[in-house]
Amino acid sequence: MTTTIDVKPSAENELVLARIIDAPREKIFRAWTEPEILRQWFVPKPWTISKVEMDVRPGGSSLVVMKDPDGNEYPNPGVFLEVVENEKIVTTDAFTEAWKPSPKPFMTMILTLEDAGDGKTRYIARARHWNAEDVEAHEKMGFHEGWGQCAEQLEEIASSL
Amino acid sequence: MTTTIDVKPSAENELVLARIIDAPREKIFRAWTEPEILRQWFVPKPWTISKVEMDVRPGGSSLVVMKDPDGNEYPNPGVFLEVVENEKIVTTDAFTEAWKPSPKPFMTMILTLEDAGDGKTRYIARARHWNAEDVEAHEKMGFHEGWGQCAEQLEEIASSL
Repeated sequence: MTTTIDVKPSAENELVLARIIDAPREKIFRAWTEPEILRQWFVPKPWTISKVEMDVRPGGSSLVVMKDPDGNEYPNPGVFLEVVENEKIVTTDAFTEAWKPSPKPFMTMILTLEDAGDGKTRYIARARHWNAEDVEAHEKMGFHEGWGQCAEQLEEIASSL
Repeated sequence: MTTTIDVKPSAENELVLARIIDAPREKIFRAWTEPEILRQWFVPKPWTISKVEMDVRPGGSSLVVMKDPDGNEYPNPGVFLEVVENEKIVTTDAFTEAWKPSPKPFMTMILTLEDAGDGKTRYIARARHWNAEDVEAHEKMGFHEGWGQCAEQLEEIASSL
């Protein structure tokens, strides 16, 4: 089980998920950047992922297709803005590829990984939005529950690598 | 005088300015990335620029404060998304710094510089927007006239470097 830690938003219109995860940050970074690992934890079960493509570098594209239990698919295209191995990943859905504006910029995700000792990681994921309405919508979509459940799934996968 | 060339938009919601500029691309790149040069050509006269700060690298911030003839100032914060020396510059106002969403993402600018022979440059500046309304607003603000006048000012400065 992950441990929730108290981390406040660092900017306007931000939602933050902060946990101590019982896996080293190198393994968590792999779980975020290797498609075959990411697809095992990146959506809350019983949803699944039917496709993952990632070009992990600033300006590289990513595509994650999520599938609900009825088989409906939801493509999520985006772009990496910043990648620091084992430390930081920033992605946004404001572009579908470098540099094509998407129909609706919704959020920018900033993930930071810090060594927390004993092979554990201080895991902070910040979702920043362009306006207050989108923050509220994201909270209602279940940001905390969804990202929380994914953090648990991530811990299970990463600690098994 | 620059020469207008026929280049079509390469994406939805794009406005494009394409010219042959009588200056080599190394000098044009300098005029785009050195604050003391940029302030001499980056707004159509009689507007002026009262402040320029630029951290020219992917994720680096830029701030250009424009001043109208009555002395009113208009700050334009943004972020560099991609920089290839003497070849390409991509900026956006969707972030005010890495990675803080701005109040209103308006456009992403993609500038490409290609050698056109005889010390000239094929200069293509693409302004991509997130929706059709912003493209229309940008055209009404005088995109073609404004960016065209700036291209002439740029040629004058760059060819004197």
